[in-house]
Amino acid sequence: MTTEADYLNQYDVSRFPSPLVTVDSVLFTLHQQALCVLLVERAMQPQKGRWGLPGGFIDIENDDSTRATALRKLTEKTGVSPSWLEQMDTFSGPDRDPRGWSLTVTWFALIAWVDCAPHIASVSNARWVPVDELKNYSLAFDHEKIITAALHRLRQKTMYSLLPVYCLPETFTHGQLLEATEVILGQSIQRKSLIRRFEASGMFEDTGESVATGTRKARLWRRKPNVDFHFFSRNLLTD
Amino acid sequence: MTTEADYLNQYDVSRFPSPLVTVDSVLFTLHQQALCVLLVERAMQPQKGRWGLPGGFIDIENDDSTRATALRKLTEKTGVSPSWLEQMDTFSGPDRDPRGWSLTVTWFALIAWVDCAPHIASVSNARWVPVDELKNYSLAFDHEKIITAALHRLRQKTMYSLLPVYCLPETFTHGQLLEATEVILGQSIQRKSLIRRFEASGMFEDTGESVATGTRKARLWRRKPNVDFHFFSRNLLTD
Repeated sequence: MTTEADYLNQYDVSRFPSPLVTVDSVLFTLHQQALCVLLVERAMQPQKGRWGLPGGFIDIENDDSTRATALRKLTEKTGVSPSWLEQMDTFSGPDRDPRGWSLTVTWFALIAWVDCAPHIASVSNARWVPVDELKNYSLAFDHEKIITAALHRLRQKTMYSLLPVYCLPETFTHGQLLEATEVILGQSIQRKSLIRRFEASGMFEDTGESVATGTRKARLWRRKPNVDFHFFSRNLLTD
Repeated sequence: MTTEADYLNQYDVSRFPSPLVTVDSVLFTLHQQALCVLLVERAMQPQKGRWGLPGGFIDIENDDSTRATALRKLTEKTGVSPSWLEQMDTFSGPDRDPRGWSLTVTWFALIAWVDCAPHIASVSNARWVPVDELKNYSLAFDHEKIITAALHRLRQKTMYSLLPVYCLPETFTHGQLLEATEVILGQSIQRKSLIRRFEASGMFEDTGESVATGTRKARLWRRKPNVDFHFFSRNLLTD
């Protein structure tokens, strides 16, 4: 009888044909009233010179999960670690990568443009591309399909939560949140519905400060530390 | 300069340390008013003799996606192919499998007990376990965590769709759908809310037949062929 110890002793992971495994992230931001996605120019083969998502292979010596791989690659490209990062589907099959049967675990995140703009400006092969201009790029692998899936997920989440706060500066006004929500959804929403949700969520606190907006002053808010992300039971658009 | 063709010619996939990749599925059914999950006894090391989810390695010669791997493994164990199967998260890390850094792509499905009961009865190492009895099992790997995640997702989806129809026989009554929904959610719901959703979904047609239920007769319904799955914008429990 083979015990588990004997079995593990003789086990050779390289004995079985295995898929190529990567991790790719779709990082969104808002800049100049446009929803943008971070693209990276491929420096090496395959598909050298094409633009694609920041990602790569798992470092099994150092990464303790695919989340760690995603964060490592995003931090390399943006200089900051997104405070909100969520796993999406995996994409797999024999034809998506010319090197062979491959599988990519995808993640998506939303970040404030101001936090990473200086770093991205200093990295020659990274660029924020407005979602509306993606059609001008011939993207690597199946990354167009992955971005489409992420965009769908981002919009769905925006209808049931206040996710857009993650692309705002640390302190922000109701007006900024409204604008970010409208840009992400691609349609206008009722200010009063959004403010009702904002208050009901219990996620924010008044900073006591305000900024001039036209003829009026608008209060500045910030996220409370360690408060759970609130999900609403109704779609924002049906409120 | 290395062209892509040169690069691919020299590329050796086994040159890089790679995680172990598996696919695991959480298959749910309803039987005797209990929500059950399909478990399989491990016939081989590691963790031989423990119960776990039906799954295994990707066959890169034959499977064209992880969905194909999940369906192949489920069909082997149940004799039927679930008509609804959805990807969940991946679970990964250095410690979840004693063979090394591993990643599993998880799927979940819901199926009618009658469809696969005879086949499962003939397979010695597969068993439907009521969710409430899982605490009596010491499950393999991190499969308890995966089942908990699947259960959460199943309940979330049930609040926004008529997903429970997938565990009913081909023709069913409103009462059966109500019961399945209540068992899955673990709480009672308003019959009139469910029927309003049933009608609004456009997913079903009257068979023209009915069955005796106590002193009354109840109509039998079935899913229309090729009708898209309908999602509601409100949580069933807030209706």
